[in-house]
Amino acid sequence: MEIKVLKNIMYANQKLADENREFFKQKNITAINIMASPGAGKTSTILKVIDALRNEVSISVIEGDIASSIDAEKIESLGIPVIQINTGGGCHLDANMIKTVVGDLKVSENSLLFIENVGNLVCPSTFDLGEGIKMVIASVPEGHDKPYKYISMFEGADVIILNKADLMPYIDFDRDSFYKGIRALNENVPVFEISCRTGEGIDELVKWLKDRLC
Amino acid sequence: MEIKVLKNIMYANQKLADENREFFKQKNITAINIMASPGAGKTSTILKVIDALRNEVSISVIEGDIASSIDAEKIESLGIPVIQINTGGGCHLDANMIKTVVGDLKVSENSLLFIENVGNLVCPSTFDLGEGIKMVIASVPEGHDKPYKYISMFEGADVIILNKADLMPYIDFDRDSFYKGIRALNENVPVFEISCRTGEGIDELVKWLKDRLC
Repeated sequence: MEIKVLKNIMYANQKLADENREFFKQKNITAINIMASPGAGKTSTILKVIDALRNEVSISVIEGDIASSIDAEKIESLGIPVIQINTGGGCHLDANMIKTVVGDLKVSENSLLFIENVGNLVCPSTFDLGEGIKMVIASVPEGHDKPYKYISMFEGADVIILNKADLMPYIDFDRDSFYKGIRALNENVPVFEISCRTGEGIDELVKWLKDRLC
Repeated sequence: MEIKVLKNIMYANQKLADENREFFKQKNITAINIMASPGAGKTSTILKVIDALRNEVSISVIEGDIASSIDAEKIESLGIPVIQINTGGGCHLDANMIKTVVGDLKVSENSLLFIENVGNLVCPSTFDLGEGIKMVIASVPEGHDKPYKYISMFEGADVIILNKADLMPYIDFDRDSFYKGIRALNENVPVFEISCRTGEGIDELVKWLKDRLC
């Protein structure tokens, strides 16, 4: 019976996600669903891309958090349109939340929309939001074993970021093991090693993103 | 209707958690539910405490992961009894899982039982396992804003660890803000700053744990 309820929830979510996807397609909006552990650098990555691309394309942001508007305030201080969704305990965004706020955010046509999911390597992976790109951010201090443990997340990624690369000298991070874990799940996914703190690797990521704009 | 289902699940979980709690009490078992983001250092902390306390008290471990037995193998290599629970997608342990495996693990009387939850700062906080101590591990690279975003987790903690303190010089971590966030939610919770890599702070944590053994 529990399985039946879960099926219904997933079906309802999928229907709304498909509607979001059609909306994004018609408006030429590249929507990126950013998923990661707490503190891996989701907002920092968004801020770096905003800095690099804001003169070339309209950007807007949906911030998902259980509580607080800390991240939205950082985005707003740059003059970028942003809406904060507080899930109030919910461990992931869903398609209905996105559908509800996209209108209020007045996302412009031919634009880039970042959707920062709740910090969580588990639940967000199973809820399609209608996005065009699933971006998963890992970070060096979390360790190289994450692809072995959070399979659904790394398996479904369209692009993987390894952030906090500047901390590599201070941490026992086995890069070969990290990549081996990813390749076993997701053979061709591009992986970018970056540091939002030092700026290393951001150019390559930005170039990749530019090539994917609708 | 969805809320009704959730209520039923929570009621069923609470009933089993109460049974686990009674079992632990009768056997004089100090059960610690360890919750944290992926890669914050749950297993590393357990390994450090095992190293410090194994000659003084019987220790056993339940490892919760969505997939893999990486963590259980680390524990087993020390000759400590361990059982791995793979939730297969589930984002948290629940009381029924603990009840099911505690028998197989043959946890001895007057012992210490670590229950390492799935790496997730959200969902585990709402599922009572019947544990005596809720331990929340944050880590410096995750940033100082975690208590503001993952309220339920920090609010419910009986002890908070701040791991990876050795990385403080390389990261913009605002210690005052971190503590302010915790104190707003949980006025008297003890907080231990440790580094599983360098060993700093472990002695104080171990001393605190020893005082809490049943």
